[in-house]
Amino acid sequence: MSERVLSIQSHVAFGYVGGKAAIFPLQCLGYDVDAINTVNFSNHAGYRRSGGTKTNAEELKAMFDAMEANELLRPSRLLTGYIPGAEALSAVHNQAVKLKHHNPDLIYVLDPVMGDAGRIYVAEDVIPVYRKMLPLATVITPNWFEVETLTETPLVNMGALRSAISTLHKEYQVPNVVVSSIPLYPWLLAALPSAIADLVGKSGEHLLCIASSYDSQDISVYAGCVPTIPGYFSGVGDLFSALLLGFYNSPSLHIPAGATPLASAVSQALTKTHAVLCKTHEYSETLPEIERLATDDEKDAEDPMRRIRRMRGRELRLVQSQDIIRGTKAVAPRDMVKWQNFI
Amino acid sequence: MSERVLSIQSHVAFGYVGGKAAIFPLQCLGYDVDAINTVNFSNHAGYRRSGGTKTNAEELKAMFDAMEANELLRPSRLLTGYIPGAEALSAVHNQAVKLKHHNPDLIYVLDPVMGDAGRIYVAEDVIPVYRKMLPLATVITPNWFEVETLTETPLVNMGALRSAISTLHKEYQVPNVVVSSIPLYPWLLAALPSAIADLVGKSGEHLLCIASSYDSQDISVYAGCVPTIPGYFSGVGDLFSALLLGFYNSPSLHIPAGATPLASAVSQALTKTHAVLCKTHEYSETLPEIERLATDDEKDAEDPMRRIRRMRGRELRLVQSQDIIRGTKAVAPRDMVKWQNFI
Repeated sequence: MSERVLSIQSHVAFGYVGGKAAIFPLQCLGYDVDAINTVNFSNHAGYRRSGGTKTNAEELKAMFDAMEANELLRPSRLLTGYIPGAEALSAVHNQAVKLKHHNPDLIYVLDPVMGDAGRIYVAEDVIPVYRKMLPLATVITPNWFEVETLTETPLVNMGALRSAISTLHKEYQVPNVVVSSIPLYPWLLAALPSAIADLVGKSGEHLLCIASSYDSQDISVYAGCVPTIPGYFSGVGDLFSALLLGFYNSPSLHIPAGATPLASAVSQALTKTHAVLCKTHEYSETLPEIERLATDDEKDAEDPMRRIRRMRGRELRLVQSQDIIRGTKAVAPRDMVKWQNFI
Repeated sequence: MSERVLSIQSHVAFGYVGGKAAIFPLQCLGYDVDAINTVNFSNHAGYRRSGGTKTNAEELKAMFDAMEANELLRPSRLLTGYIPGAEALSAVHNQAVKLKHHNPDLIYVLDPVMGDAGRIYVAEDVIPVYRKMLPLATVITPNWFEVETLTETPLVNMGALRSAISTLHKEYQVPNVVVSSIPLYPWLLAALPSAIADLVGKSGEHLLCIASSYDSQDISVYAGCVPTIPGYFSGVGDLFSALLLGFYNSPSLHIPAGATPLASAVSQALTKTHAVLCKTHEYSETLPEIERLATDDEKDAEDPMRRIRRMRGRELRLVQSQDIIRGTKAVAPRDMVKWQNFI
C-alpha cells in the first residue's frame, strides 16, 4: 500500500489530541502522513494553562504553496480537524477545493471541530466557513453539538435528528455523516433498533454511534454502541476520525455481507477507539489517588494541579495500544447494525 | 515500559527529516514522545523551496514554561536535533540544564546539527552554544564535519581523529561519542581493526561508524561499517540518533558478551537505519526515470523540478519499514567490533 494522508490539525508537544492522536495510528495502518500543524501548543486546552502559537492563514498558505510548487501535494486522503480561526479555515477550504479538483477521488474526512457539550471553543465565524466546506467532504464526523450548530437544529427528538441528518445529506451534499459518543437520551433509546436497545438494556450506560450514508436517493443509517467509560478523555474524537479515514475504502477492510463500506469502517474505528480508551482507563486507575481525583469545580479552582494531574493521567495510551490499532491484538468487535426505520 | 522521550527538533509537513524521522520510530519502540518543533516547514531544505516558520526563543520558552508549570516535563530521555539559531538553542540549553538537574539519570542524545560535507547550515553563533551544551549529553552524534567544527580539528589523519575524540571526552566531558556515515579515507582504512578492514575489502564502498566511550579513565572505541548506498538521502542521521536514543540502556536491548551498552545500541541503530535506507533505495529504483535523474548542478539549476523529484523519491520509507524498526522483521545485523589500538 502506498497511500498518503494529508492531515491538517493541531499539534501539542505533550499528550494525544489532534495530530498527535491521528498521525501515529495512521502510520501504524501503513499510511504516509503529511502533517500541517494549525497550532503548536505545549498541551491541550483542558489543562487550562498552555504555551505556544497558532498558525495564521498566511503561514498556512505559504506551506501549501511551497508544497504545491514542489509537487508534494498529492494525497489520496485528507483529514482536517481543529482549525481555530475563520481566516485559517478559509485557507484550508481553498486548499481542499484545489486538492479535490486535482483528484476527484480524494477521500476527505472532515471533522468540523467547533465545540462540545453546548460550549463553542473556536471563533464563531468559523461556522459559516464549515458550512461552505461540507460539500467537499466524503465523511463528516461532527459530535452532537456540532450537528446542532451546523444545522441550527436543537436535537430534542427523533424528528429533529432525522431533519438534521437529512439537511447534512441533502442541503450540504455530504455523502456520509458519522456522529459518535452520543448520550442515550430516552427518546433516542426508544427509537433504536432492537439489537442495540437489547445490548444497551443489559448493562450500565452506553454511548451511541450513528453512521448515515446518502446515495442521492436513499438515506441508510447504521447504529452501534459502546459502554460508557467514566471520566472525560481528550483526543478520542480525533483518534476516531483518523481511524475512520484509515479504514474507509481501505483495501485491507473486510466488508461483511449486509454491511456498507461506511458501516464497516465505522465499526473498525469504534472498536479500536474503544479498546484504546479501555486501556487508558485501566492505566489511569493504577495511578496514585492524587493523580485521579474526580472533577470538583470548586476544589479544581483552588488547586489547578488537581485538574492537571487528572488530565495527565487520562492522556490516551496510544503508543501502548499499537498492537490493537495494527490489528495484531484482537479486541471485542463493536458492530454497527442497520437502523431500518430511521427515516 | 513507560518511558518518555522529549524530542526537540524540526517539523516538516512532507517527508522524513528531524522529528518526522525520529518520533514514529521511537513510538514504534514503545516510547511516549513529547515533541517540540523548532521549525514548522513544508519540506526539508534540500528541495530548495519551502514555506513555514522558525520557532523563536520566546515561543520555545513559553512552551517549556507551560509544560513545566503543568508538571509535564518529566522525560526519562531527551533528544535534540536541528535548532537553527543561537537564541533558540540557548533556550533549549537552559531547559536541558533544568531537566538534568531534576533527573540526573536523564539519557540525553545530543545531535549537534550544524552542517555537512564542509558546509554549515545554521547560524555560526550556535557553535559556542553547542560547546557549552556538550557536558550535558550522554551521547553525542556529530557527523564528521561537526566533529571538526566542535573541536576545531581538521580530521586529516589518525592523530587528528584521536585528538578530536579525546577532546570531546576529556575537555567537553562527553561520555559517549558516535560518528556515523564516515567516508573511508585511505589513512582511516589503514588503521581499522582487521575484522572491519576485511569486510570493507571484500566488496564496494563502505561508510564507517565509530562509537567511543570514556569512563573518566579509559577511552574504548568500537567500529562498524555498512555498504554505501548511492545517492543522497535526507533524515538518515536524524533516524540514526533517534534509534540510538531508543536502544541505549533499553531494558529490551541484548548486550552480547564483550560488547558495551553503547556498542550494542549503536549496532542496533546502524542495523535498522541501514535496512530502512536499503528499502528506500529499492523503492526509489522502481520510480520512473524522470523521478530519479542523477544530480547535475547545471541541469538542476535549469529545471528545479529535477532535484525536487529526486528528493521526493528518496524520502525515507519509514512507515513501510515499521516491521524492521520494531524488530518483527529480521535484517542482516551490522556488528560493532572493538578497535583495540585506536588510542
